[in-house]
Amino acid sequence: MTKISYRTAASFNGYIADEQGSVSWLYGVDRGDGPPPNVLDGVGVVVTGSTTYEWLLESANMLAEPATWQTYYASRPVFVFTARQLPAPAGADVRFVQGRVEDHLETILAAAGAEDVAISSGGELAGQFLDAGALDEITIGVAPVALANGTQLLPRRLEADRLRLTAVEQRGQLVNLTYTVSNHDS
Amino acid sequence: MTKISYRTAASFNGYIADEQGSVSWLYGVDRGDGPPPNVLDGVGVVVTGSTTYEWLLESANMLAEPATWQTYYASRPVFVFTARQLPAPAGADVRFVQGRVEDHLETILAAAGAEDVAISSGGELAGQFLDAGALDEITIGVAPVALANGTQLLPRRLEADRLRLTAVEQRGQLVNLTYTVSNHDS
Repeated sequence: MTKISYRTAASFNGYIADEQGSVSWLYGVDRGDGPPPNVLDGVGVVVTGSTTYEWLLESANMLAEPATWQTYYASRPVFVFTARQLPAPAGADVRFVQGRVEDHLETILAAAGAEDVAISSGGELAGQFLDAGALDEITIGVAPVALANGTQLLPRRLEADRLRLTAVEQRGQLVNLTYTVSNHDS
Repeated sequence: MTKISYRTAASFNGYIADEQGSVSWLYGVDRGDGPPPNVLDGVGVVVTGSTTYEWLLESANMLAEPATWQTYYASRPVFVFTARQLPAPAGADVRFVQGRVEDHLETILAAAGAEDVAISSGGELAGQFLDAGALDEITIGVAPVALANGTQLLPRRLEADRLRLTAVEQRGQLVNLTYTVSNHDS
């Protein structure tokens, strides 16, 4: 069954980007030997927000070199929640949507088919999926870094009775923690 | 050699207390079977701040029942950084200090002897030890809880080249992460 997962790296004190929106603090982190796991294995659809999307286009120069997009996402649909007009790399299956998560959930799930949906964005969009009762899993790559301030990992309150730690995996200096979210309120 | 360790539980998104200063979200967390590890083994001195100290006195009713203090701290000196006049349980070795960490470091280390110093407080005091080049280790008990806001785990920036993950230990739903801090700037 399709799962909706929020997957992100974070500083151990709960930020996913610093005050300038940068994730450069993550680059120096040892992620262990061997090939990195393909985080999009089993993922049919990626959902993101405009900040992450624009950062991605720019940091990997994807508008000028659209082949880079294919390397990351292949033919997967990528839904971008944004109220703005944004460009897309040639050949990329980018679907711009705006408004409430609830209004697009059916379309997103249909696009994923039997595969999973990965939320790859700032914590606010993940929080909106949570608010909609549509967040099944959170996987955090905890980095050996503290940030004084920045973009919050998940600006929501979620008590222990709604979360279950299902996996702890160390890769080099990163610790991946996976929590299953119970949406019993929905 | 004496280590100065910041030891705390935290929500997975980086808070040690909620907006009301409460840690009640932690009570329901499964900490695994068997007796809990005595977090003060090997600790000669505890350092805390006024908020944590007052919370402790009140939550365990220690002024009226000073034997409770002995159960927690035995005869260990507990240094409380505060600018205020605060009471202490009868028979407790509580030492009130104020001002800069640097001004009290020698006294604190002397009191610890060959044992360790545990910082048990909000992240700001731990940050002041870090600023003073006097924080050697951070141990975080990561809880399956998110908090929307509250007291920050560590309101400082600390890059990956100054932290080394040295232990990952799961106990029930808690994951204890230990980082060694390099104070090469000091």
